[in-house]
Amino acid sequence: MDYNPEELHSLFNPKSVAIIGASKNQNKVGGQVLTNMLLGGYTGKIFPVNPKGDMILEHQAYKSIKNIAEEIDVAVITVPNIKVPQVLEECVEENVKFVVVITAGFKEISPFDKLGLDLQNELLMIASKGKTRLIGPNCMGIASTQSQLLALMGWAVLPPKQANDDLKISITSQSGTWGVVTMRSASIHGLGFSKLVSNGNEADLKLEDFVEYFGLYDDDTNIILCFMEGLRNGKKFKKIAAEIEKPIIVLKGGKTIAGSKAASSHTGSMAGSRQIYDSLFKQYGILQADNSTDLVDLGRALAVLMKHNKMPKGKRTVIYTGGGGAGVLSADFCAEAGLELVKLSDETIEKLNKLLPPYWPKSNPVDLVATRNVGAFTEVLKILSGAPEVDIIIANLPIGISAQLKQPDIQSILKQLPKNLFKRDVLEAFEQTMVSSIRRIAKNSDKTIVCPSSLYHADLPSEPDIISKTYKSGVMIVNSSWDAARLIKKVVEYCEYLKKKKKQK
Amino acid sequence: MDYNPEELHSLFNPKSVAIIGASKNQNKVGGQVLTNMLLGGYTGKIFPVNPKGDMILEHQAYKSIKNIAEEIDVAVITVPNIKVPQVLEECVEENVKFVVVITAGFKEISPFDKLGLDLQNELLMIASKGKTRLIGPNCMGIASTQSQLLALMGWAVLPPKQANDDLKISITSQSGTWGVVTMRSASIHGLGFSKLVSNGNEADLKLEDFVEYFGLYDDDTNIILCFMEGLRNGKKFKKIAAEIEKPIIVLKGGKTIAGSKAASSHTGSMAGSRQIYDSLFKQYGILQADNSTDLVDLGRALAVLMKHNKMPKGKRTVIYTGGGGAGVLSADFCAEAGLELVKLSDETIEKLNKLLPPYWPKSNPVDLVATRNVGAFTEVLKILSGAPEVDIIIANLPIGISAQLKQPDIQSILKQLPKNLFKRDVLEAFEQTMVSSIRRIAKNSDKTIVCPSSLYHADLPSEPDIISKTYKSGVMIVNSSWDAARLIKKVVEYCEYLKKKKKQK
Repeated sequence: MDYNPEELHSLFNPKSVAIIGASKNQNKVGGQVLTNMLLGGYTGKIFPVNPKGDMILEHQAYKSIKNIAEEIDVAVITVPNIKVPQVLEECVEENVKFVVVITAGFKEISPFDKLGLDLQNELLMIASKGKTRLIGPNCMGIASTQSQLLALMGWAVLPPKQANDDLKISITSQSGTWGVVTMRSASIHGLGFSKLVSNGNEADLKLEDFVEYFGLYDDDTNIILCFMEGLRNGKKFKKIAAEIEKPIIVLKGGKTIAGSKAASSHTGSMAGSRQIYDSLFKQYGILQADNSTDLVDLGRALAVLMKHNKMPKGKRTVIYTGGGGAGVLSADFCAEAGLELVKLSDETIEKLNKLLPPYWPKSNPVDLVATRNVGAFTEVLKILSGAPEVDIIIANLPIGISAQLKQPDIQSILKQLPKNLFKRDVLEAFEQTMVSSIRRIAKNSDKTIVCPSSLYHADLPSEPDIISKTYKSGVMIVNSSWDAARLIKKVVEYCEYLKKKKKQK
Repeated sequence: MDYNPEELHSLFNPKSVAIIGASKNQNKVGGQVLTNMLLGGYTGKIFPVNPKGDMILEHQAYKSIKNIAEEIDVAVITVPNIKVPQVLEECVEENVKFVVVITAGFKEISPFDKLGLDLQNELLMIASKGKTRLIGPNCMGIASTQSQLLALMGWAVLPPKQANDDLKISITSQSGTWGVVTMRSASIHGLGFSKLVSNGNEADLKLEDFVEYFGLYDDDTNIILCFMEGLRNGKKFKKIAAEIEKPIIVLKGGKTIAGSKAASSHTGSMAGSRQIYDSLFKQYGILQADNSTDLVDLGRALAVLMKHNKMPKGKRTVIYTGGGGAGVLSADFCAEAGLELVKLSDETIEKLNKLLPPYWPKSNPVDLVATRNVGAFTEVLKILSGAPEVDIIIANLPIGISAQLKQPDIQSILKQLPKNLFKRDVLEAFEQTMVSSIRRIAKNSDKTIVCPSSLYHADLPSEPDIISKTYKSGVMIVNSSWDAARLIKKVVEYCEYLKKKKKQK
């Protein structure tokens, strides 16, 4: 079906949503969708539809979508699979723009039950009679922070944090559960989230279509995250990937034979050969995540680095650390990832000599050798951030150290101690000063600064305040120096792709 | 020097500790050690030593160790490097059993300052005149939960949780900072910790000696964690590694040229070739961690699985999941790690058929295909835990889902919602039931059960209660299905080593 991709704007910013199969029972999918819509605080009109036509959660329900006088932008269908064709028929007749079929039991069951494929083909035929476009079937729904839309199945889905500050991450996912979990992860730590679509069986609209919309037509998306089992229209994907200037980060499922088999019984997609996908992603500068956490961390890192003009200019890396062992490990991880541990210039070493004890190693990693000079932590960062031989600084600083003090088990230890023994205020003041200094230095530097902090984790907002403050100065926070090396290498490769692309123009 | 390794018992369980260079100023190392000793609640006698001989933090200080009438088991030295020889001399004269030299500026500075090596050699010579043994120099100190000993430098080190329940992890580390951080990680989540020694330059006692003590002479150690840059006595290490029956888990620093260079200026150790260490570790069944988090997770996993007799019998793995995408990824990760995704027997499939909707994939991964049957989560686990073709179950269950509700940003969202919309009690009850069922099933099964939970992280006690309950039934919790596959593969290899070793006997 031909369509203008811009039309997807109405899917994510609908003026009205009908929920067909709505219920007040949260054990039913229709009850979950309605509840989640209310939880999200949707700014448009909600029309529950069910055969009884009674009041549900203070909303008047309609016996059929045909009874609703107003225009419907999006209808969400949750009725059993055999009833979906008839309900869809009514939606098409009423010119509903988009129908999200959450109901399962279509193509994905065809290996066991021929009915599934027949039903899915029937949906396509019905939709082709009008202009209605389909999402799903067998999906979890859609979400969008612009209209506070949370049209998702699942118990009490937590609304994501709204996109702000130009950090707008959108997700298209061939796994619904994964998509919903990732939406949550992507929206914590003070960074904004934009949109989610769970693609399901992709009978009509596909991952390629959503990537196209997010990449070329949606001003509210800066970064695109995909969970991809397989592409159904590789040609289209290549075309749009070449045009899109926003980063696309993919987590590819079905890379092994075992995973590929699992994928085929999940959404009926063909996972395809690993080599083909790897080279496709490489050719179009698509970042590939190794796992779910990486995907979110990469999205967050790119959002932050791009916004603050701190994308790496090259791969010349300096590590600095308050502990020698951490430096050794960090050096290993960088070397393994393929980053270059830069030889520091005589000028830089000269400057560091003035600051550090005479027995500091005078090489990279810069080891503070347990200097007593608290200010050295940030003075070293200042020197390195001015060093022309350096592109990337991996700063192993004790960020989040005071957050540890708030943990319940620590609290109970602290309560038993004499008052002035544990200088909590000293520790907190140290951290505050350090974070302020990092922010000040980062603002005046064009280097890529990465801070590993074991108190940060993609899925856990342990110290949202410190983390978000640091983000606001363009500093990338990751969980560990292992992650730092692995993730920054992917960002470096993306920058190399961008440079090459620019030259070709 | 010849000695009986059992003597190290006095190092970790001293009746008396002198702190030479003690101060009330926490910016001084001597102040930090004294404060940490008090924080830890040391059960023996503390003797501060400094030239003033005044009262420090309610303890009488002595001008010299020679002025203390009682026998001293351990002296911790924090005075400047050039003063260490004289102070050590006095300790040797007083027959102090162990001297922990925290002071830096010895062999590690010798590339820049010849004095360092001379001083270190002088220490050795002085010690050889008596029976005193040295730890360090250039180390962070020692800790032991048996005597609540926290003889460590560093601001306000958090006391580790005491070893309980036979889960006793001990650490010997060629990086002090790393050791202290790991001690904290190893002691949270309701698991116990036993001992830490920061080895420093290893002028006298070495990593090999501590591994020997922990492995062969210390009943309070079940699992040995090492951060190793290089061995100084490989022959001894091989000998003891062959004898020790407890798991040894190593994080090796200096595996790359860049890391190896960094190691040599850190503690002056020779990192040696990667191949030599890799084959050494393989030969003696030593588990190698990829990074710091892995090391703690592996230690914790082994502690739990061994205690509850749940070590894997083989590598035949079944995955089960509530979301197809998670199953696909999990299958990929297992295949990449080298685990075998087992073909389920007809009997097992028959049993699952009775429980799951007709369109479940009838294969491994077992996808619950969004079944509405809440009990299915645990019923499936019950069936799989009785399947003879299965050794390992990776159960992607929503463990920790209610912990998410306690996070500050979620709390603020929940407060704004109408009271009964978000069924928090339903979610919590669901989780409670699930965890109880898992525990009940695990107790009656000899399978290795691994549960990935994004709300668990090695360094963050997000939901200690649920996690520790699960541990108590012998279930291994990890952060992600990626970790699950990577870590369990290492455990499988360790079991294969044990089997081979048993045969050879």
